[in-house]
Amino acid sequence: MTPQLLIFDVNETLLDLSPMKEGITKLLGNPNAYEDWFSILIQMAMVETLTDKYSDFGEIGAAALTMTSQKHSKSISEEDLKLTLHLIKELKPHPEVKEALEKLKSKGFRLVALTNGGRETLEQQMNYSGLESLFDGFYSVESVRKFKPHPDAYHHVLKKEKTSPEESMLVAAHAWDIAGAQQLGMQTAFIKRPGKFPYPKGKKPPLICKDFTELYMKLTVDA
Amino acid sequence: MTPQLLIFDVNETLLDLSPMKEGITKLLGNPNAYEDWFSILIQMAMVETLTDKYSDFGEIGAAALTMTSQKHSKSISEEDLKLTLHLIKELKPHPEVKEALEKLKSKGFRLVALTNGGRETLEQQMNYSGLESLFDGFYSVESVRKFKPHPDAYHHVLKKEKTSPEESMLVAAHAWDIAGAQQLGMQTAFIKRPGKFPYPKGKKPPLICKDFTELYMKLTVDA
Repeated sequence: MTPQLLIFDVNETLLDLSPMKEGITKLLGNPNAYEDWFSILIQMAMVETLTDKYSDFGEIGAAALTMTSQKHSKSISEEDLKLTLHLIKELKPHPEVKEALEKLKSKGFRLVALTNGGRETLEQQMNYSGLESLFDGFYSVESVRKFKPHPDAYHHVLKKEKTSPEESMLVAAHAWDIAGAQQLGMQTAFIKRPGKFPYPKGKKPPLICKDFTELYMKLTVDA
Repeated sequence: MTPQLLIFDVNETLLDLSPMKEGITKLLGNPNAYEDWFSILIQMAMVETLTDKYSDFGEIGAAALTMTSQKHSKSISEEDLKLTLHLIKELKPHPEVKEALEKLKSKGFRLVALTNGGRETLEQQMNYSGLESLFDGFYSVESVRKFKPHPDAYHHVLKKEKTSPEESMLVAAHAWDIAGAQQLGMQTAFIKRPGKFPYPKGKKPPLICKDFTELYMKLTVDA
């Protein structure tokens, strides 16, 4: 079934986090530090949800950057930490994203974004990236205080959009995000951003695409 | 309050995973591959629990190693994958662990182990490491099919040991494990294995120790 609603993950899926990578690499003097940071960030967000807590994603990001700096034995100032974390608010979309979203919109798909990030950060990101006008809705897990892949995060969007899981599709570059959507019976599309791979033990996503151009082609070939 | 029951995390806390690190580094030809693997393993275990699924930790470890090999653009045979993962069953304790456990036991503490690993792997690990006789009990999350830091994992041990959270202490080298124990009101001790740091947003563990020798000293100084 062709999905009516496309739900897009934001960081790494729509937006290119290269400036964050460059900032963290420069700050900590190590090319692996960015991945350490992103991995600790996602891990601790899941831990908050598993232990029935909730903190703003930006605050968890700051804590994760402190842990990453300790791991790399670098002392960083409060100001450098803030300046580096601020970079997440000024990201560009991956090169093919804008045109593909415009074409998907022109084909009648409803497009929304769903992020683990806070609402304010999401608004700044969409505004800065130039993608804002292409979306029909924006969702942050802040509304339910449960991070993806907890089912409440996806369920909230489906309820607000008055859509069934089967008629919707989550588009993401992260195995953990795909797993959460699959649990609710949503359709899924995995975008193979560099270094990202599906979870071999999970149900294979119906669409696996190298980028959004391929996503557009696969979604419209039978439409 | 001096805890009566000490609950030890196994991998990285009691046991030195250096052979796994060497095996994965050799297999994938990259010194960062081991950390990638361990990080994906922990992440996907949490995802299984968040999405109400359960797979054996060893099977998630295999899936994580496949994802890590894809990330490092290396094709690995089924046999090499199995041989490398088997290394987790033949690990030695960190150098100071055995003597410290013997001394803690002689002081009257009750010692048990609690792992995200499967029961069979746990038995093989304890047998191979020479630590088996020092413990009064062994627990795997296999019994509750929820990975740490889900509260059920810790609650199961407290129930079986007929102990209150306040009278028990979780000893671990992982921020996520400490967070889970804290949620239940257990005492905690963080062991600073290389590259491991507490979560700055969490409650500070009452004991932060560089190794088990320091743990023994801190636990017995007032006893």
